[in-house]
Amino acid sequence: MKGRDAALSLRRAQAMDAADPLTAFRDRFVIDDTELIYLDGNSLGRLPRATAPRLAAAVADEWGGRLVRGWNEGWFDAPDRIGGKLAGLLGAAADEVILADATSVNLFKLTLAALLARPGRHTIVTDDLNFPSDLYILRSAAALAGRPVVVRVVPSADGIHGPAEALAAAMDEDTALLSLSHTVFKSGYTYDMAALTALAHRAGALALWDLSHSAGAVVVDLRGADADLAVGCTYKYLNGGPGAPAFLYVRRDLHDALANPISGWLGRADPFDFALDYAPAAGIRRFLSGTPPILSLTAVEPGIDLLLEAGMARLRERSVRLSEYLIARWEERLEPLGFRLNSPRDPARRGSHVSLGHDDGLRINLALIHEARVLPDFRRPDNIRLGIAPLYNTFTELHTAVERLRAVVVEGLHRRYDAAGLAVT
Amino acid sequence: MKGRDAALSLRRAQAMDAADPLTAFRDRFVIDDTELIYLDGNSLGRLPRATAPRLAAAVADEWGGRLVRGWNEGWFDAPDRIGGKLAGLLGAAADEVILADATSVNLFKLTLAALLARPGRHTIVTDDLNFPSDLYILRSAAALAGRPVVVRVVPSADGIHGPAEALAAAMDEDTALLSLSHTVFKSGYTYDMAALTALAHRAGALALWDLSHSAGAVVVDLRGADADLAVGCTYKYLNGGPGAPAFLYVRRDLHDALANPISGWLGRADPFDFALDYAPAAGIRRFLSGTPPILSLTAVEPGIDLLLEAGMARLRERSVRLSEYLIARWEERLEPLGFRLNSPRDPARRGSHVSLGHDDGLRINLALIHEARVLPDFRRPDNIRLGIAPLYNTFTELHTAVERLRAVVVEGLHRRYDAAGLAVT
Repeated sequence: MKGRDAALSLRRAQAMDAADPLTAFRDRFVIDDTELIYLDGNSLGRLPRATAPRLAAAVADEWGGRLVRGWNEGWFDAPDRIGGKLAGLLGAAADEVILADATSVNLFKLTLAALLARPGRHTIVTDDLNFPSDLYILRSAAALAGRPVVVRVVPSADGIHGPAEALAAAMDEDTALLSLSHTVFKSGYTYDMAALTALAHRAGALALWDLSHSAGAVVVDLRGADADLAVGCTYKYLNGGPGAPAFLYVRRDLHDALANPISGWLGRADPFDFALDYAPAAGIRRFLSGTPPILSLTAVEPGIDLLLEAGMARLRERSVRLSEYLIARWEERLEPLGFRLNSPRDPARRGSHVSLGHDDGLRINLALIHEARVLPDFRRPDNIRLGIAPLYNTFTELHTAVERLRAVVVEGLHRRYDAAGLAVT
Repeated sequence: MKGRDAALSLRRAQAMDAADPLTAFRDRFVIDDTELIYLDGNSLGRLPRATAPRLAAAVADEWGGRLVRGWNEGWFDAPDRIGGKLAGLLGAAADEVILADATSVNLFKLTLAALLARPGRHTIVTDDLNFPSDLYILRSAAALAGRPVVVRVVPSADGIHGPAEALAAAMDEDTALLSLSHTVFKSGYTYDMAALTALAHRAGALALWDLSHSAGAVVVDLRGADADLAVGCTYKYLNGGPGAPAFLYVRRDLHDALANPISGWLGRADPFDFALDYAPAAGIRRFLSGTPPILSLTAVEPGIDLLLEAGMARLRERSVRLSEYLIARWEERLEPLGFRLNSPRDPARRGSHVSLGHDDGLRINLALIHEARVLPDFRRPDNIRLGIAPLYNTFTELHTAVERLRAVVVEGLHRRYDAAGLAVT
């Protein structure tokens, strides 16, 4: 591309940013290093400006000043209160979502609860695009069901698209649970939640969705899809901070039907009664177990507030425009250099990250980070994941990232690294 | 007490504070309201001065500045690194303790791991002084063992002392696990860990200790007691903050023998391999499950550092002196007003809180909080728990608290409240 064309295409990206009112939300985040292009918001979202002062107040005023009284002044109710806000991003009712534990622990609890609610059935159906930890946890729970339960891992034909038809064929009257990542972590493929849930229900199974890569990235409509159960993390597109407490969703009519297999005191009716026998709390709180980490929980709220303020439908629309722009730039500038699109082409089936494959993917990713000031992440065998957070990533950033990616390969900067990820001297 | 005697006894308390070098540690905590006497450090420890700046740096510099790179720059190793420090307070080796999840979740994991390691046995032995949530969790885990497992709850004869002999009699060749609170939450009774563990081992059972009310309060010697397993929270005497991440201990020779029943990605060997099959990490990390809440985890460290600096043996010695002083003051000033000592008299069998019983306990506790600026807590039926944190509570505070307790009853301030805890107008 000649200098004039390059300048023109950059100006076009800048004009798209200027024309989009959502671009202003970028200023609501702490961005000290403006040279760095951060494309890993699908792994850890950026720090909202409101978070540090909010957390500082929780530490100084609540913990330091109010001490144990803080439990009666907001901490006790924080899991449902913040969960109720998050529900607004997930198409759920406010009393169907609660913050608790880590995603893996929540998945364990709800999987086991589902297996115990479908006692005659012996299979869990999932796919090989699911986050590996989800497979580990499904098997953990299956091993404790008190009967033989097999986890059937249906393979994707191309490693990119979810095997929707094969999943449908795999479910039958012996299926207790269908559990899938709604948006899968490598390719960014997004399932049709309503269609797959309906197939699970037709087989008499429950459907449990991992929303970790969907929450804040795509329009999730748990109610509209008639989903039974869901879990997810809050540290990706929700910008809740490193390892922030996870969430879980249980459709309201299932609250009484399901039992929490880790029945700790916070999920008990009247936990301060300290009675020797457990009796579950009413509603979604019965799925709590132990005491939640209040400081990390406090840090989750400002990110959710930002998403609610921007509006999930508008954010999704912007995410699609950004992703389509990135794919168009890939086609023009990167495909000729051997980059493959490892994500679905159809935006309706794609979350908010785009994976680019390349035979030298790992080395290119390293050069990108260390030589070109772009921060994506890498997933084997060959995926450079470019996460697009519609609250703060811009067209201009994507334009520049593509040009830097191109420069890495053209200038051979990736040859400074070997396949083990070490700098070659 | 005449005015001169009162002044004299107060001066004596002040002199004891002045003579103790550990009194200086009080200045390492944020104490804005100096009129308030805080005796609930056994529920939520005070805020160390070092914590707010440490957490602010983690938010601004690590999350805000380093973004996802933080995982390679300290976050990933934080659970074992901080656990290794904590091990120094528990008589464990640094590679035997790790921070993870909530206490209830850790108790669930280790109970189930123990049950699966003792496949032919059908009972868990515990007592009715145990924290009720521990009983719920023991039963939760028992229900998932794949065979009938009964939780035998051995009653205490007086509600104060642990039924050590009855526990010994309750264990036999069918006992898989002995699980007890080392220091019990109501009376503050502390078990002889080595003796009870030896009895469990003689029966072929494993011993699992809940150290929530012991860590930072008494000298714990897990190695010396040959304890198998332990769990506990960090928000009481360790001053880790509200709902701070819990810890677990597994004796080194059991690491390979026990399986984590919630096998999430962070407990996997090479978690970033993203392989579809689980393989446990080496050592204590296999007992991790999901991603830990880094901000809350970060806040745990300064409190542990303070305890290590002061030294556990010296802190324990001070805790005993403070507790003995409080009991002496109770005997002189409160017993005549109907207050009972609901804690063991022998300091060797007592943790760092003292429970006082009174027929009007609940109402007196309310008056103490709302009319007398003393903050204890209350546990049914009649226990006013006075927690003594040796890092920041003083002889002077205890002297004043006893006088305020006395004044509440003498002046009838508790009659302003009814038994339901409502102010009577």
